[in-house]
Amino acid sequence: MALTIRPVTSDDVELICEQRERLFRESNSPGRTEEVIRTQTTHFRPWLVQRLRDGSYFGYMLEDAGKPVAGIGLMLIEWPPGPTHPTSDKRGYVLNVFVEPSHRRQGLAAKLMALADSEFVRRGATYAILNATKMGRPLYEKLGWTATNEMAKTLR
Amino acid sequence: MALTIRPVTSDDVELICEQRERLFRESNSPGRTEEVIRTQTTHFRPWLVQRLRDGSYFGYMLEDAGKPVAGIGLMLIEWPPGPTHPTSDKRGYVLNVFVEPSHRRQGLAAKLMALADSEFVRRGATYAILNATKMGRPLYEKLGWTATNEMAKTLR
Repeated sequence: MALTIRPVTSDDVELICEQRERLFRESNSPGRTEEVIRTQTTHFRPWLVQRLRDGSYFGYMLEDAGKPVAGIGLMLIEWPPGPTHPTSDKRGYVLNVFVEPSHRRQGLAAKLMALADSEFVRRGATYAILNATKMGRPLYEKLGWTATNEMAKTLR
Repeated sequence: MALTIRPVTSDDVELICEQRERLFRESNSPGRTEEVIRTQTTHFRPWLVQRLRDGSYFGYMLEDAGKPVAGIGLMLIEWPPGPTHPTSDKRGYVLNVFVEPSHRRQGLAAKLMALADSEFVRRGATYAILNATKMGRPLYEKLGWTATNEMAKTLR
């Protein structure tokens, strides 16, 4: 493999949307029907266009001989200072971690996650969160991530 | 009890900071030392002042004969549209849910949580999150909240 790393750019909109859809499709979580996945993309795409442009969505692509084979999205989100980050009003958020099936189990996700850690620290965040798929969870645990006490409710 | 409900205002800064500190103190979570709790308040207070002023932190106080006995904080946070809220780029966030020990087990927290649901729906959010203390969790479960797949990491 001749792996290269590059930051995501505004030209990656469709690639990121596609990786995100495949991620949700593979997660096999209840409620993630094709209809829901497509609807979220319809709304996620213009949201992403704007945030790639203003730099609030950033991240990396790994390419093998010029072909994208893995990606990660990063954001800094505003959050009240609290015990998990007592002096800071932001936390890192990791999303859209995706590795092509052909390139799995070769450490690419771990490489992307290490890039995330450094990039967050460089930008002043001391605490980061993510939403884990069942498949991703063991890897994140190995890299020092732990489950939080977050709960959620869908409102009618 | 002569309970009345009122929205939080900019005059509630110290009351909210105090309820938040007591909440963290009671949670007995690892790492929530007095020093950490006080440090977060030092940073949370000015953060709160600004957000009460611009309306991005809102919520309610319950008063018993004019004395505040319970409180809840609410925010709308920007979030990428995804399977949990496919058409919306925001989610509700519930924080600082506190009931005075003298007034517990009388349904006050459930009343505040019902107000949160309606307020979020009124503002167009269809999905909400919170961080539960061990004490709060059974109540939230009874009200339809479930644990998410969130993971976190403290960065060095």
